[in-house]
Amino acid sequence: MKLSKRITTLTEDESGGWALYFKARALVEAGESVTELTIGEHDVGTDAAILDEMHRAAKAGHTGYAAIPGIPALRDEVAARVAATTGVPTTGDNVVITAGGQAALFAAHMAACDPGDRALFIDPYYATYPGTLRGAGAVPVAVPARAENAFQPDPKDIAAAAPGAASLLINTPNNPTGVVYSRATLEGVAEAAQTHDFWVISDEVYDTQIWEGEHLSMRALPGMADRTLVVGSMSKSHAMTGSRIGWIIGPDEAVRHLINLSTHTTYGVAGYIQKAALFALRRGIDFETGIAEPFRRRREIALKILEGQNVVRAVPPQGAMYLMLDIRTTGLSGTAFAEKLLDQRRIAVMPGESFGRAAAGHVRVATTIADDAFAAALEELVQFAAAQI
Amino acid sequence: MKLSKRITTLTEDESGGWALYFKARALVEAGESVTELTIGEHDVGTDAAILDEMHRAAKAGHTGYAAIPGIPALRDEVAARVAATTGVPTTGDNVVITAGGQAALFAAHMAACDPGDRALFIDPYYATYPGTLRGAGAVPVAVPARAENAFQPDPKDIAAAAPGAASLLINTPNNPTGVVYSRATLEGVAEAAQTHDFWVISDEVYDTQIWEGEHLSMRALPGMADRTLVVGSMSKSHAMTGSRIGWIIGPDEAVRHLINLSTHTTYGVAGYIQKAALFALRRGIDFETGIAEPFRRRREIALKILEGQNVVRAVPPQGAMYLMLDIRTTGLSGTAFAEKLLDQRRIAVMPGESFGRAAAGHVRVATTIADDAFAAALEELVQFAAAQI
Repeated sequence: MKLSKRITTLTEDESGGWALYFKARALVEAGESVTELTIGEHDVGTDAAILDEMHRAAKAGHTGYAAIPGIPALRDEVAARVAATTGVPTTGDNVVITAGGQAALFAAHMAACDPGDRALFIDPYYATYPGTLRGAGAVPVAVPARAENAFQPDPKDIAAAAPGAASLLINTPNNPTGVVYSRATLEGVAEAAQTHDFWVISDEVYDTQIWEGEHLSMRALPGMADRTLVVGSMSKSHAMTGSRIGWIIGPDEAVRHLINLSTHTTYGVAGYIQKAALFALRRGIDFETGIAEPFRRRREIALKILEGQNVVRAVPPQGAMYLMLDIRTTGLSGTAFAEKLLDQRRIAVMPGESFGRAAAGHVRVATTIADDAFAAALEELVQFAAAQI
Repeated sequence: MKLSKRITTLTEDESGGWALYFKARALVEAGESVTELTIGEHDVGTDAAILDEMHRAAKAGHTGYAAIPGIPALRDEVAARVAATTGVPTTGDNVVITAGGQAALFAAHMAACDPGDRALFIDPYYATYPGTLRGAGAVPVAVPARAENAFQPDPKDIAAAAPGAASLLINTPNNPTGVVYSRATLEGVAEAAQTHDFWVISDEVYDTQIWEGEHLSMRALPGMADRTLVVGSMSKSHAMTGSRIGWIIGPDEAVRHLINLSTHTTYGVAGYIQKAALFALRRGIDFETGIAEPFRRRREIALKILEGQNVVRAVPPQGAMYLMLDIRTTGLSGTAFAEKLLDQRRIAVMPGESFGRAAAGHVRVATTIADDAFAAALEELVQFAAAQI
């Protein structure tokens, strides 16, 4: 029986770029010892106090349908956080709570794009991006961020792709590259968006993980609050990946329609999870800094290990929980390197090619395991790379 | 800034049929006493033992990204339940866990329909249906189930609408009418689906609430397992409305693509909620019967109250947690009746017109409050109706 063309062509293959990740997982499930540096998940679970608050809320009766836009207190708290960190006046009417950052990415594109619309995104990209755009019926168009520019997008490339675009998806701090977009980059994006009249969908889920410079929100640039949909999430900032709670910040008219979309796609988010998220956000910046701290520390460890050799070169890791490593000196593709490293050393890293053409010849290393094990794995990766030459 | 045509035309107005519900809610929030018989939500919360299991699972570490298809044990449990109740061989590969029944309805249409495809649904319908189909880019086409046929769909009407259709959405037991589809109806649907080669999307979320006859799953009819996507949920059967967990049952190829869609729209469902759902399903049929029992009891109460008068006539309530009442003797529309009943008696019921043209001149009464209060409200509704003549 024929399925829709949309769903059968969502990704180029069924792995959607996750083939190496699945291969490593299969080895682990078969009982093999593999050091997994693949996905962006903390090595700690969600804090017990947050889980206790969730349970308290559930037992207190927050188990029925919750308000579809999100509970008012949480929308207000998110708005206050955004207003404080960006300086842009923001109220609960600018916020819709979603079933995670991925749901927010999808919904934002549903709001910005009609079927057949041209939707830009930056390559290298988080693996779900092109499929998310296709799921919303849009035609994804990759704009390269070049290795020679340390993966900072070039406004000229964006301007060249902009005519006729309905949207541009950006991500800062960036997964997979670890790059934090500069003010010049964001100003270039803003100029293109205003000249060519498109929406910017700004994925800022790593905004608490900044190691160099500062996080600038697209929405804070002049004239951009009316044409930006910011995607946020509790996953990375509060180690709540599995709870699937996030949000979109946008103009109130867009939010009204996004709420109507939520009614028809998810019917809201569990009230007890929203209560837990509210509790977590109210723990303030120190809690968030603590959640980010291991990634800051492991970045330092990595930079030390990579010093004094020229085989593996790190893209300067300015933010997020990843290292993007240039392994082109080995003569191997990122995919071949990652496959061989997994086969021979039982270390799993993601091929750059999983994140697009621009990241070919690179691998992404998640800094998501204990410091000692992380240091040992990275040292072995460097030795392995040297042995390929 | 221009939003997509899709999102701005998702529903005919922003209330999407919920205007009376919102009006009643606003009165309650303003401190007024209103008897709310609007939405399909139990008057009990989720059972404490299920919540305790959820907390146990969360504290045990199930707070990270869960398997996107659903955890294997839950997929297997749902498959076993479906196999047992329908007699159709079903494995975990036929199951994708979704973020609730509404997410399942949306995903099923994304799988069955491409933008512009003709998607049939039965009128009267659950209020989100047309918007869900539009959200998936399809063109919704209503097929009437007629009041004079006690809202049992007529296969002739389905056959007449079938040419060129990509899908037909059915719902048995039915919300809002309380009708359980007969074998003859389902055979008519099956014949049309096979003749005209479309998918049947079968919303069976009320399958534990049967008061007359028996529930037949569309998927159990000859030749239909390959072209049916069954939507299920823990909301109504286990009083887990707020937890947003449901599923789609379908052919394994469809499920593979639906999993890929989940990767790009929700990125799965919280592991601790899945563990709680697994625990809840394993409590077995007695638990489900207990959850359904108040609705069975209130249906009996209602039938007694409606005896011996001819102003308000109930559509025979065969299943689900609603009464569909024909109030055409009053000369009022369902909307006018519901508005006046709310204004004058502070009783909130849903206008039939919220559920489509076929239910005009009716109101839907949810049997979702304590027996005494329910009986008093229904008696007052009958007196009110009589006073209109």
